[in-house]
Amino acid sequence: MPVHQATAQAHPNIALIKYWGNRDQALRLPSNPSLSMNLDGLTTTTQVEFDPSLKSDVLILDGREVTGAGRERVGRFLDQVRDLCQTFEVLETSKVYARVESRNNFPAGAGLASSASGFAALAVAASAATGLKLSEAELSRLARLGSGSACRSVPGGFVEWPSGADDRSSFAYSIAPADHWDLVDVVALIDVEHKSVGSTEGHAVADTSPLQAARVATAPDRLAQARSAVLGRDFAALADVVERDSLMMHAVMITSIPSLMYWQPATIAVMQAVVQWRANGLAACTTIDAGPNVHVICSAEAADEVALRLRVIPGVRQVITARAGGPARLRPDL
Amino acid sequence: MPVHQATAQAHPNIALIKYWGNRDQALRLPSNPSLSMNLDGLTTTTQVEFDPSLKSDVLILDGREVTGAGRERVGRFLDQVRDLCQTFEVLETSKVYARVESRNNFPAGAGLASSASGFAALAVAASAATGLKLSEAELSRLARLGSGSACRSVPGGFVEWPSGADDRSSFAYSIAPADHWDLVDVVALIDVEHKSVGSTEGHAVADTSPLQAARVATAPDRLAQARSAVLGRDFAALADVVERDSLMMHAVMITSIPSLMYWQPATIAVMQAVVQWRANGLAACTTIDAGPNVHVICSAEAADEVALRLRVIPGVRQVITARAGGPARLRPDL
Repeated sequence: MPVHQATAQAHPNIALIKYWGNRDQALRLPSNPSLSMNLDGLTTTTQVEFDPSLKSDVLILDGREVTGAGRERVGRFLDQVRDLCQTFEVLETSKVYARVESRNNFPAGAGLASSASGFAALAVAASAATGLKLSEAELSRLARLGSGSACRSVPGGFVEWPSGADDRSSFAYSIAPADHWDLVDVVALIDVEHKSVGSTEGHAVADTSPLQAARVATAPDRLAQARSAVLGRDFAALADVVERDSLMMHAVMITSIPSLMYWQPATIAVMQAVVQWRANGLAACTTIDAGPNVHVICSAEAADEVALRLRVIPGVRQVITARAGGPARLRPDL
Repeated sequence: MPVHQATAQAHPNIALIKYWGNRDQALRLPSNPSLSMNLDGLTTTTQVEFDPSLKSDVLILDGREVTGAGRERVGRFLDQVRDLCQTFEVLETSKVYARVESRNNFPAGAGLASSASGFAALAVAASAATGLKLSEAELSRLARLGSGSACRSVPGGFVEWPSGADDRSSFAYSIAPADHWDLVDVVALIDVEHKSVGSTEGHAVADTSPLQAARVATAPDRLAQARSAVLGRDFAALADVVERDSLMMHAVMITSIPSLMYWQPATIAVMQAVVQWRANGLAACTTIDAGPNVHVICSAEAADEVALRLRVIPGVRQVITARAGGPARLRPDL
């Protein structure tokens, strides 16, 4: 068998309506539908090389070889790609190992969702390297198996991920391209004092919160509001539902067992500041993932002012700005 | 009619299982049962004088005459006392106005629940001044009409307030006297940057949170755990349920419409610090009311250490320590 190689790029995404908790933990079938925006400028670039001479899968992240849990997770994902290859008979052996080399152009450990862009890029690169011809929907499903929110980094722009009925029907699709609306995500990176619980473990305990069922039951309504706000470019309507939905997720997080408190003091400072700014006419609202960073979603006109103001809030370590980004894609030129 | 006068004292209380939301807003019939500890050392002293020469009710708080909403609320409460007097025929006229003079020995505006101790002391003083002979249960019911949590400041020590079926059956009673367990409440007073929404308005919007029904439905279980932890003096069990219940209330608050975010940056800092301290063996846990202050409930042995550590957390303005306190009572000597 010859060496099979491909390179792909993908962006992380920020959920405007949050994914939290799974109906099926192994398949990462989500408890509720979600909606996100890809983040242009923040990019994961991943090269995959299936090589019969390798004795095991190899993972190199930002120039360093990763072993342990990180490599195992990628290995399990590659097993699923190899299973697909057997089904479609595109690789000559059922077990050819791969070397995966991945780079983020954004600070590692900053709490930006590198697993979303990482598994989206990996799904696109690994399937192409093996010769699999997958549709966008199939790539999104595949990426979902690596990290739930990665399925939303496969299509471009503004992306919806319905819960789906099963493995086949749970994939994300674009509801509007990146240039539909010039929203900006101004991310306030916050100092972290305590190590927090990772998303995968967090999803696993979502159902221990007595509040999760009510969050899940009302999520489709919020999704419908957010979708229509995005399609109609209605910032005020979007701000209202984005902040409410983020707070719903954190309400579930802090009341799960164990209690997951991702917020730091500066997280609160930024949330409260932005509520005040919006009351005074600035088109900005906040949303927070499973970490302390605050994503300030704002209009293009407000973005510079928002970034300036965020930089002087104590505990804000760095500010990163991203517009709506495109889909995951192969980079034959790299 | 001669002048009728009486003076009473009451302590604020800290809810270990929170009251949030009413089944009946006017009667302040709570959506769920709650459990609290009176706070010794923090005292409201209230003198009531019914005087036929007055043309309206007068309220003097910490030496200053109060008009507007504050006086109206007290006036409506006194109307209910006057109604009771008519029923029992203890005052010669249906409308004799009163002068109410109330003092707190703790800083005003510190966000300590002065309405609980205030209406408990007022219920005891006003009923005695008119000559009404009310039982503890009747006094607790009466105090409830002024401020829901005030009903828990009438009995002594550790106090339970069942939801009750109606006005008659919704009152609080002691489950253990103050000397049953030497718990200490070390209160971290936190700097406030933004004015927050008062409890009465907060209760009124509790049902706008999609999460309130699930909180209410699970509150009796938490109450049973807290009651048995108090009766068995089991600190670890109490800490677990006290923190969970407080987070349940704030989960509802932040997801109500409007969103009520009572926490400040230092609130988060204290919550996270105490979780760490407890993991390292210190018998301490946190609970937070409708404000930014953090009540650190701890063993008597841990109290000095907790106070020392709290004082150096940035944003903690002052630390106040209180043990379990006794019931509201008349002070004929004052």
